[in-house]
Amino acid sequence: MSSQPPHPALLIPGPIEFDDAVLQSMSHYSESHVGAPFVSTFGDVLSNLRKLFQTTDPASQPFVLSGSGTLGWDQVAANLTEPGDEALVLHTGYFADSFADCFETYGVKATQLKAAIGDRPQLDEVEQALREKKYKVLTVTHVDTSTGVLSEVKALSELVHRVSPDTLVVVDGVCSVGGEEIKFDEWKLDVVLTATQKAIGCPAGLSVLMASGRAIEVFKARKTRPNSYFGSWKNWLPIMQNYEAKKASYFATPSPQLIHALDTALKQILSRPLDQRFADHRNASQKVKKAIADLGLKQLATKPENQANTMTAIVLPEGVTPPDVVPSLLKKGVVFAGGLHKEIASKYIRLGHMGVSVTDPNRGDLTKAIDALRESLAEVGKA
Amino acid sequence: MSSQPPHPALLIPGPIEFDDAVLQSMSHYSESHVGAPFVSTFGDVLSNLRKLFQTTDPASQPFVLSGSGTLGWDQVAANLTEPGDEALVLHTGYFADSFADCFETYGVKATQLKAAIGDRPQLDEVEQALREKKYKVLTVTHVDTSTGVLSEVKALSELVHRVSPDTLVVVDGVCSVGGEEIKFDEWKLDVVLTATQKAIGCPAGLSVLMASGRAIEVFKARKTRPNSYFGSWKNWLPIMQNYEAKKASYFATPSPQLIHALDTALKQILSRPLDQRFADHRNASQKVKKAIADLGLKQLATKPENQANTMTAIVLPEGVTPPDVVPSLLKKGVVFAGGLHKEIASKYIRLGHMGVSVTDPNRGDLTKAIDALRESLAEVGKA
Repeated sequence: MSSQPPHPALLIPGPIEFDDAVLQSMSHYSESHVGAPFVSTFGDVLSNLRKLFQTTDPASQPFVLSGSGTLGWDQVAANLTEPGDEALVLHTGYFADSFADCFETYGVKATQLKAAIGDRPQLDEVEQALREKKYKVLTVTHVDTSTGVLSEVKALSELVHRVSPDTLVVVDGVCSVGGEEIKFDEWKLDVVLTATQKAIGCPAGLSVLMASGRAIEVFKARKTRPNSYFGSWKNWLPIMQNYEAKKASYFATPSPQLIHALDTALKQILSRPLDQRFADHRNASQKVKKAIADLGLKQLATKPENQANTMTAIVLPEGVTPPDVVPSLLKKGVVFAGGLHKEIASKYIRLGHMGVSVTDPNRGDLTKAIDALRESLAEVGKA
Repeated sequence: MSSQPPHPALLIPGPIEFDDAVLQSMSHYSESHVGAPFVSTFGDVLSNLRKLFQTTDPASQPFVLSGSGTLGWDQVAANLTEPGDEALVLHTGYFADSFADCFETYGVKATQLKAAIGDRPQLDEVEQALREKKYKVLTVTHVDTSTGVLSEVKALSELVHRVSPDTLVVVDGVCSVGGEEIKFDEWKLDVVLTATQKAIGCPAGLSVLMASGRAIEVFKARKTRPNSYFGSWKNWLPIMQNYEAKKASYFATPSPQLIHALDTALKQILSRPLDQRFADHRNASQKVKKAIADLGLKQLATKPENQANTMTAIVLPEGVTPPDVVPSLLKKGVVFAGGLHKEIASKYIRLGHMGVSVTDPNRGDLTKAIDALRESLAEVGKA
């Protein structure tokens, strides 16, 4: 029996539905941000993030800052690149445009490699781009929340290490970490940045980032100071190292309640084998995608291999727009998201399948979502 | 009867003890960040911040971002100053050094006007500094958490408007907003920045800032783009205006749970006259300061007029250091903070008196704190 009051099931691609224990951790009584109990909790969070990202290399460095997923872009642009550097930004939708804008803010030239909507840049195109110019970083959106497109992170990283080994591999994992398989060490990634409110299953308000030892070396070798203050690793690196060693230190006040909730969420995730969690997300995604196809609907992501396991972008029937179905879905107790990719926003809706809605079979959130979608389309005469 | 489990009373100068209803709001069930219910709550928060800051000028602009008080410095430096500009930073302790460092990060030259420890720069010194050079901004820490020194914000603003009317008046109100009187319009302030975990009484994780119409005009007239992405008003201004108009829009995902908690805290604060709240804080502070004097102890802040109403920095007897008393105080159920000002950190401790510990007479937190301090000093043979 949930301790939460009845409410519509939030099935947008983040924030997601949260487990009771995680939400209860948000109400933790007030603690000093430099007191031993909280410092210990923060230390646990950092150690457990290493497990979630599957990194055992002690040179890897987790960061947890108050903020949102977006702040991870600032961390990358302000700490790993310097004005005049070049970034290759793989484009699968809305978020690449924004990440590129973030780089430009910090004086870094961002070159976007764009795919057709619903697809991703192909490996041979990426290889060609890498051979044409020296890029300090390559960025890829693991799951593009605007299109539901999944990128092939492992293969991309292999390509970068083969063709342009000095280029850092930066993964925007906002809609993937905790739901899609990521092997930080084995895939030789340099940065994976994420937020908490998606497949990690903790309320929004934190920027979570894992940096490789190589990335930290690049940071330490900068010629200029980091050009952010709040997002500066010069300020945060000693703090994160101290917290993980369970020693108190201070740069800016963290959010004890959010850290407690993240601690609870991570301990829940790690109480089961990660591979099983990823399989649960794949299976739930397959069921959703089959049901969508059975309704005669297409996905925005065009090929089975580029379809995310954490969400589905559903193309609406001709003549139907999100306002025709989203309010009707809400009345049936499920919250879908509208379109986000500017060029086609009026033609599709988005369904997230992450966290407890996937791992807790008793909730029935996704069955309810599919049933509601079928009914809503029938109401507008399209199913 | 509190719904919180028994725990030591947190009486550091922030985070403070939180009201039950505020903590319960942290556990709010998950909502879409662009759905009508949450957008309405965020809108209420922004409108109520205007009341808390006592501004009725429609050109004033509140900002609430996921982050911490420190992010407010980045907002000022990245949006209101441009590389090559000059900032006059009034120094009353630790935080001026950090704010100056933040300005330097953004290419702004920061000149610090320092006072002796426990004092504040005098008006004639500030006037002289303003006459010597043209400053884009003057910054002042309203209550310096490292020293307990209160600055004379109203008089400083009058001085700036008289002597250097183009200079923007920026107040770091992290340890003051909600506890010390601030009249944003009447005092002609341009920015007051703060965090939530102190006298506002909401868990940490948000950067709260009020900008004047004049500050927004200066922002709009910049020749260069804001040099932060996550903290850019170019990105956030339309979002904040939309939220306040209760229209959905998106730049980066806010933290619905923290916004709900802030909403609850603000509604509690505004349910009583603000003047009464400030008087409560003055009265509690006077009681603490009298009790400290009765124990034969001095404050770090040297004069009655420069002593904060939200906290007290207590100089320990000769030969006693924070580790001699803070653990013993914790055993008695009260959490004091150690010293923070580098040069004298080993010689004093800090006691916060804000929020429910001040406004709820049934808690008895401050009486308990003073009794515990008396006992702890007796144990080390000093009282």
